[in-house]
Amino acid sequence: MNSQTKINSSLRTVEWKNNKVVMIDQTKLPNELVFVEYNDFNQVANAIKTLVVRGAPAIGVSGAFGLALAALQSKTTTKTELILDLEKAKKILFDTRPTAINLGWGLEQIMKVAHAGTSVNQIKTSIVDEAKKMAEDDININKTMGKYGSVLFENNDTIMTHCNAGALATVAYGTALGVIRATKESGKNVKVIATETRPIQQGSRLTAFELKHDGFDVSLIPDTAVGYTMANGLVNKVVVGADRIVKTGHVFNKIGTYQVATMAKQHGIPFYVAAPLSTFDMKNNAQDVIIEMRKGSEVTGIGDKKTAPDGIGVINPAFDMTPPELITGIITEKGVAKPPFKESIKKLFEAN
Amino acid sequence: MNSQTKINSSLRTVEWKNNKVVMIDQTKLPNELVFVEYNDFNQVANAIKTLVVRGAPAIGVSGAFGLALAALQSKTTTKTELILDLEKAKKILFDTRPTAINLGWGLEQIMKVAHAGTSVNQIKTSIVDEAKKMAEDDININKTMGKYGSVLFENNDTIMTHCNAGALATVAYGTALGVIRATKESGKNVKVIATETRPIQQGSRLTAFELKHDGFDVSLIPDTAVGYTMANGLVNKVVVGADRIVKTGHVFNKIGTYQVATMAKQHGIPFYVAAPLSTFDMKNNAQDVIIEMRKGSEVTGIGDKKTAPDGIGVINPAFDMTPPELITGIITEKGVAKPPFKESIKKLFEAN
Repeated sequence: MNSQTKINSSLRTVEWKNNKVVMIDQTKLPNELVFVEYNDFNQVANAIKTLVVRGAPAIGVSGAFGLALAALQSKTTTKTELILDLEKAKKILFDTRPTAINLGWGLEQIMKVAHAGTSVNQIKTSIVDEAKKMAEDDININKTMGKYGSVLFENNDTIMTHCNAGALATVAYGTALGVIRATKESGKNVKVIATETRPIQQGSRLTAFELKHDGFDVSLIPDTAVGYTMANGLVNKVVVGADRIVKTGHVFNKIGTYQVATMAKQHGIPFYVAAPLSTFDMKNNAQDVIIEMRKGSEVTGIGDKKTAPDGIGVINPAFDMTPPELITGIITEKGVAKPPFKESIKKLFEAN
Repeated sequence: MNSQTKINSSLRTVEWKNNKVVMIDQTKLPNELVFVEYNDFNQVANAIKTLVVRGAPAIGVSGAFGLALAALQSKTTTKTELILDLEKAKKILFDTRPTAINLGWGLEQIMKVAHAGTSVNQIKTSIVDEAKKMAEDDININKTMGKYGSVLFENNDTIMTHCNAGALATVAYGTALGVIRATKESGKNVKVIATETRPIQQGSRLTAFELKHDGFDVSLIPDTAVGYTMANGLVNKVVVGADRIVKTGHVFNKIGTYQVATMAKQHGIPFYVAAPLSTFDMKNNAQDVIIEMRKGSEVTGIGDKKTAPDGIGVINPAFDMTPPELITGIITEKGVAKPPFKESIKKLFEAN
């Protein structure tokens, strides 16, 4: 690891180590920090499927590492046969979570390297190098985003965040939490308020865990206390991640983001979104984005514990849409886009 | 039970039956509907303490029923000794939850009857009658509130409610849910969306349970999905209860109410509060009301299941304040107060 990618957090979600893939088993958090080690791409596919690893950037790199394992596992002696083996593995890896845009992208990057290669051994080496580079790129993008974002925060700010856009959603460092890390690394003292983020509690299980692990002053609130904390002057800024941002600046992110942004606007609290350019969807309009509805049992119980009666309806959307008028700025690795977003987002891509 | 107090709901939170107190054990909900029977005031005290019964109006009546049991239990032969026995029981009942305003009120009502009585037997009979009357009064107030409130709702409305202001918080029928019941009884078809209401899930455990039990079309959402459901046209009106309303129309209610009201305002959705006059605090100003902070373990876990790491801060306020500018109307047993609330609330009490 070179100095550029040295990170202060010891949490590395997914890593290539001695020709093995090492992951934090996120299903065990926050009660246990367990690292798992895989030498078979089928194990990686299963890990993605069972949420051992989650978060779009982390899944993209995990898919690439999975294909790298498949390359090493292949016993073939010709390039054509190796590519056939890789195509089979790619299908198995892709089918784990077909809606995650980064997964397909990560797999295709590796296939390009395979097709461009010459000998079987050279292809294997190039694939492993490419997958490792993708992991480093993810960290570097987050660190660059962090630098651009950190100037927006002041000493002694208390920053609210929703869901987990942290090291645990990326290879390391994080997007929204990366900005918070960078702010602290720049010498500013910051506190964090994490929302629980029901129904599956990524705020308490992952964000509070990772920030506490890395020595941050973090407080947890139920999702119902967003208004109270803002009305009582306990929050100075908000920063969240994003699952998709369209060209008009409408942000699709974890359910609940929209009401956090609305409450922030009501109290004059700046509301920032931190996301790499790979999160932007420059083709679709906001109204074309379909919001995934998840199973009701996430809301009617917690783990095995049933907390609601049988036979009721449940509305459980995974995401909501925050309109651009509630957003103060969008932090990317190419700088911070400010309103009007239609123009500022266009400029981010022109500069690319 | 006379025809005036006949209720459609079969859920009666607390009842006097054959010189015993019968309660729904709310700690068993939503998984089991269990009725418990007490013939000793100490059992009633313990029930209040352990949340077998909760909700300010229900606790007030439970306290009165507890004192009625104490009167029947007393072996004394003089009025003076009976009153001494009642004072001892009153202290034990009061100390269960000393902050609930209705509990003290309910106990004092019974003591007045005791002091006004003549013979031991006459006092015992009067106390039982008074406690039973208090229970009936609670239902009648809720039904009157329901009638005033029902005209505000239209056929095919979907009504959102937060927390539990239902039969289970009162003797029966409910305040906010009483208004919803009355709307349905008036022949209008309504659906309900219940918020989960973290941290202790009175929305899923109690509101969804009681509405499902009584045949309503009820859907549950996580607290994070309030904005989504409103933005997507799934909610026409909101009605909630209140723990305290001050003379300026600032409403103190379960944590999360303020953000539900803010989101409703943002989407032009009418936001109503349903509460009896006994909920109004005409002495204190909004800024003088102290908001109870509850233990962090309610947020860091659910039941026995730990969902957050150790050693983090937790902010867990029981209530928040909704300012009058977010409120469309306050439904009481004396009619509906509309803005400007300072005047309309004053009028409610003048008409009294």
